Amino acid sequence: MPSQHDRKRESIRRMLEPRSIAVVGATPRPQYGGRFLRSVLEAQDKVRVYPVNPRYQEVLGVPCYSSLADLPESPDLVGIIVPYHQVLPVLKQSADVGAGAAIVVSAGFAERGSEDRNRLQDEIGSFAAASGLRVCGPNCLGVANVTSGVWPSSHAPDPYLQPGPVALVSQSGATSFGPLATRAVEIGLGYSHVISTGNEADLEASDFIDYLLDEPHVRVVACFIEGLKDGRKFLEAAKKALHLGKKIVLIKVGRSGVGAKAARSHTAALTGSDEVHNAVFQQFGVSRCEDYDDLIQTAHLLAYAPPPTAEGVAVVSHSGGISSLIADHLGNANLPLPPLTESAEAGLNRILSGFGWAANPADITGVASRAEFADVLALLEMEPQTGALLTATAGTPSQAQIVIDLKSQTSKPVLFLSTGGDNTEEGLAMLREAHVPVFTSPSRAAKSLADLFRYHRRRQKFLNSQTAPAPSAKSPPPLPNRPTTLTEHDAKNLLSQWGIPATKEVRVHSIQEALEAAKTIGFPVALKLESPHIPHKTEADVVRLNVQTPRELHRSYGEILANGLRFAPKSKGAPVLVQEMIEGGVETIVGISQDPQFGPILLFGMGGIFVEVYRDVAMRACPITKSDAEEMISEVRGARLLQGFRGAPEADVDALVDTIMSISRLAGDLANRKPELDVNPLIVLPKGRGVKAVDAFLTLSSSPSMGES
Amino acid sequence: MPSQHDRKRESIRRMLEPRSIAVVGATPRPQYGGRFLRSVLEAQDKVRVYPVNPRYQEVLGVPCYSSLADLPESPDLVGIIVPYHQVLPVLKQSADVGAGAAIVVSAGFAERGSEDRNRLQDEIGSFAAASGLRVCGPNCLGVANVTSGVWPSSHAPDPYLQPGPVALVSQSGATSFGPLATRAVEIGLGYSHVISTGNEADLEASDFIDYLLDEPHVRVVACFIEGLKDGRKFLEAAKKALHLGKKIVLIKVGRSGVGAKAARSHTAALTGSDEVHNAVFQQFGVSRCEDYDDLIQTAHLLAYAPPPTAEGVAVVSHSGGISSLIADHLGNANLPLPPLTESAEAGLNRILSGFGWAANPADITGVASRAEFADVLALLEMEPQTGALLTATAGTPSQAQIVIDLKSQTSKPVLFLSTGGDNTEEGLAMLREAHVPVFTSPSRAAKSLADLFRYHRRRQKFLNSQTAPAPSAKSPPPLPNRPTTLTEHDAKNLLSQWGIPATKEVRVHSIQEALEAAKTIGFPVALKLESPHIPHKTEADVVRLNVQTPRELHRSYGEILANGLRFAPKSKGAPVLVQEMIEGGVETIVGISQDPQFGPILLFGMGGIFVEVYRDVAMRACPITKSDAEEMISEVRGARLLQGFRGAPEADVDALVDTIMSISRLAGDLANRKPELDVNPLIVLPKGRGVKAVDAFLTLSSSPSMGES
Repeated sequence: MPSQHDRKRESIRRMLEPRSIAVVGATPRPQYGGRFLRSVLEAQDKVRVYPVNPRYQEVLGVPCYSSLADLPESPDLVGIIVPYHQVLPVLKQSADVGAGAAIVVSAGFAERGSEDRNRLQDEIGSFAAASGLRVCGPNCLGVANVTSGVWPSSHAPDPYLQPGPVALVSQSGATSFGPLATRAVEIGLGYSHVISTGNEADLEASDFIDYLLDEPHVRVVACFIEGLKDGRKFLEAAKKALHLGKKIVLIKVGRSGVGAKAARSHTAALTGSDEVHNAVFQQFGVSRCEDYDDLIQTAHLLAYAPPPTAEGVAVVSHSGGISSLIADHLGNANLPLPPLTESAEAGLNRILSGFGWAANPADITGVASRAEFADVLALLEMEPQTGALLTATAGTPSQAQIVIDLKSQTSKPVLFLSTGGDNTEEGLAMLREAHVPVFTSPSRAAKSLADLFRYHRRRQKFLNSQTAPAPSAKSPPPLPNRPTTLTEHDAKNLLSQWGIPATKEVRVHSIQEALEAAKTIGFPVALKLESPHIPHKTEADVVRLNVQTPRELHRSYGEILANGLRFAPKSKGAPVLVQEMIEGGVETIVGISQDPQFGPILLFGMGGIFVEVYRDVAMRACPITKSDAEEMISEVRGARLLQGFRGAPEADVDALVDTIMSISRLAGDLANRKPELDVNPLIVLPKGRGVKAVDAFLTLSSSPSMGES
Repeated sequence: MPSQHDRKRESIRRMLEPRSIAVVGATPRPQYGGRFLRSVLEAQDKVRVYPVNPRYQEVLGVPCYSSLADLPESPDLVGIIVPYHQVLPVLKQSADVGAGAAIVVSAGFAERGSEDRNRLQDEIGSFAAASGLRVCGPNCLGVANVTSGVWPSSHAPDPYLQPGPVALVSQSGATSFGPLATRAVEIGLGYSHVISTGNEADLEASDFIDYLLDEPHVRVVACFIEGLKDGRKFLEAAKKALHLGKKIVLIKVGRSGVGAKAARSHTAALTGSDEVHNAVFQQFGVSRCEDYDDLIQTAHLLAYAPPPTAEGVAVVSHSGGISSLIADHLGNANLPLPPLTESAEAGLNRILSGFGWAANPADITGVASRAEFADVLALLEMEPQTGALLTATAGTPSQAQIVIDLKSQTSKPVLFLSTGGDNTEEGLAMLREAHVPVFTSPSRAAKSLADLFRYHRRRQKFLNSQTAPAPSAKSPPPLPNRPTTLTEHDAKNLLSQWGIPATKEVRVHSIQEALEAAKTIGFPVALKLESPHIPHKTEADVVRLNVQTPRELHRSYGEILANGLRFAPKSKGAPVLVQEMIEGGVETIVGISQDPQFGPILLFGMGGIFVEVYRDVAMRACPITKSDAEEMISEVRGARLLQGFRGAPEADVDALVDTIMSISRLAGDLANRKPELDVNPLIVLPKGRGVKAVDAFLTLSSSPSMGES
């Protein structure tokens, strides 16, 4: 028996490659139902089309059926364009007659923002999953298989849109069939499919991405996402893309709160924290784009460019001013422009004979309009440090031909930046035809090129360390089977099971015990009142550091008890921790949070106010690899402090990497308890001396066997 | 007698509005000289043209002169296209015959990077200034007066380029006559002038900006700058623009080190610190653009849009997905989308009758294609919080007409974002014709709109507080008339003359003196070895804080002396400061640096490692106004700490503002000594308790009367 996943794929296959389509709500009028019918009728040579509407005998010259039950066959696909309250009954009929899939164009569901419509949408989703008749929509414009020329959509087939290696998946139909189609035509980019997923009652963008990645002719999936329905499903698709060497590029709305609010009101999709989205996109090689043109151009580049052969970019232009702006943007995108080798510089100087500037970027002035332009490019292409070439000129036909010839002879990515001028339409058309990515903006060229480099670096790392670290051999310690908050001492004990060292400390209930503990540990010590009712000890003023003498201990002990009572009367009777003082080291924070989209997220940052004021943190979805841990540290600006800042000794970064990995392992081992953990501060001691958890806080949900939903 | 400035303006006037032009190096061949001649010959109906070349009797059908001395009149303008070594002699001849100005197209000067060519360029500059015959170039493409149709340039007149309210000034000729011209034509933007300044041996971009701002038909000056020659001159032009209500928009290369390097190799211009550039651009209402399209579109918007009438933006589109992306980008640019008033929401709901989403952004679905689109826009326009309107649709002729009508009826800026589609060429052309700024990218529309709001906010502040604070009444204290470094104690004494409080402290030379000082000040105290040979005391470990007892003082005193000797043997015999310990407060840094471009720059930031790791600082050119000081504080992210972070008391921000102002005054009073000052940390105490300079360091150059160059 086929798996649920296989059956879903088969349903999607019947939706995207239908041999027969029923259109329920077909009408001759220019409404959504009429447009849908017109669109599929354009593919009548490939598809059997059945209008369904009890009010007509015939629509647009095609026999019309009064009900799905009357059709001569089980249609692969049913297009549904009926008032919202009829959608579920039509879906049930569709299942009854053995239809393969449905596209619901009808609106009036969760996007209305009311409880009853939400519920109705949920019912559609549940029915689709249970029946196996999977649904695209509601509130979508439908789909287009551009390759086969079948457009089951309420948007008319675009005669200018060419088939190509990029599949487009968008929650907004107006966006995919509007600006993203128009601009693809403008730059000569072809699409394999255009999918508009609407409210995603059932199938979501990630289902289509997963499906499309397996299509041999699809090299890039480009997406417009307002909010992911299931972040983990998306991550699985992203991993699959990395594995296959295919790319996902996307616009994700929600960088500011404003857009997310607008998105929610429309698609009723959940929009998670934007920083977490950014982190996981980066972790799994997904290129985030800001805008229509950025998306289209990045998709184009990633679809056609081979992997860069080295980290450097060679730039050539007819103008020093243009070169310098390009170099500036490449520099901002952290793309190096390696200097020319001596022999290349000499060769270039020979060609330039006293004009321009033989360097990288190369300013070749009038030579750009002569046959020697080809020699210049050949010279730069041969440079061992050239990983990709960026050529910026007007784009006359002869320039275009030279760039096209170069592209056909090299295994390195070649980009063209059009600087404008007369008589360039023909040349630019030649470049588009030859699928040389043509940019018009230095900043966008730099951005897309940076995405290309980043994708291949990321993919290499992914292939090198595909297996995440094995879970620790130890099984987790027995823990109470209910929602649990572990305060500092207990949390540290738990951490020690994963090999994470903490401060020496004793939990005491009296001054006498405290004095004894301090003598054992050795003065100075820290005193901390430990109560679950005081999550932030500093605010309640229940911490005393550097307690030097028994007399000071005596006084401090009394103070923090009194402060604790004042802040939270329930802290009465709470124990006090007597703790060793850690001298030196660098304060960091390591934590786990549970993201509603992406599950356990590991966070690393510099401790104290750095994390609060500057949000100077790096995040990854768990589990992480060692190179993830190393990258996280390098992403944090304040990590400079670990290298020995202003005469301080270098910190034990190896131990920090191990600890981050251990905490990722803990997140995995305790996954079913959804741990939320703060180790703050985790002090990184000087090299060779390891790390110490100085404070920690852990919450666990009840274990799922307890019947938590 | 006219001033130097007036004479320069008169020379520029003769360059940009010549009645007669000599072309030295005229040739029939398609080289720079031939192209220059061809260009000016196209304006033969307005300008008398004199080719000069001893080798020809006639060039391109015009009588040719063998020397400037043979001309029948003194030409307003001489175009010079001769080998580099002949340029200076030709300039001298030009001056001899009473020519008004010169454009030197010839290359081979500082851009070659050699000492002798630099010197030759400097000689051209000196000659121009001394003779009054001002020079544009060398290594430029010339200028175009698009309004009058006279193009003294080696670039052929562009028949498509229309006259308009934007003047273009560019150091790169290939950029101004290339992409910046092509794209202006594409979006229907007209130029008054196109000026290519090349190497700027004499006249620099700021001279032209200053001149063009006085032209009544110029509303915006758009610039492409690789490096400013004289930042202060640019600032004067920027202030003039603010005063006149005109705008400067620019691309400034040098955001990454890479571009700056490339720029230097080309124009040999100095490129100052990019952060300082950003700060002063912001301070004086200059819009920085990243790219050709950004520059053109921002210039277009600023040239035609009236000032926004409120802080909010209303957005309307036919698609929820498109709305949400626009809202997201506006949010990122800190542009608020105020919610609709109840009456507007009701009115919109009446028009939408159950479809779309009545909110801001408004998703009006199919209504965008109907006559009611006008009613929607009228409704949003009337909203009191709507300061500007952004409409995003395909741009059919009927949509275009509705937007054009709206623009003619409202005093609010109206922007159009084209989302693409068939049958839009005509509508977009109508919009361009009516000078409705048409954008194609939500991110760029948001950026340009943010620039518009920012310009008018900035201008209002500028007009409100035009007079910088008066210099302090006190004259500076007597200071040695040579380069001077004041260490902590002396620097604080100087600061006190400008009313800036510092820690109580005594400078001592023995342990006995130190003990007495500590008793007077009161324990705990800080001890600091004070030597000009130890600029960073922490690195040398010559500071002891929180010294609690005479015994500890004794030990600490010995330690820091020993550490000082080890770090810098010359510190022998240096005094020790005994200083009060400041409890609490927030560490900040305030300083003055001398920027090679912009002169004294005031810096404010959070103290300690914040400034070093995060560069969390704000900068302004001196003198600053009170609102500048307040803005500087609000720009610094860590300034959150001043508001009372995590239960800490609110800090004395008023005193901080006063202190920043005082330091700006100090920079002015000591201007001729070019002070470089670090007050680090300046502790801001809780509200009502003021600030205290805890450490300070000041260097002064010798006074100019000492004959320093």
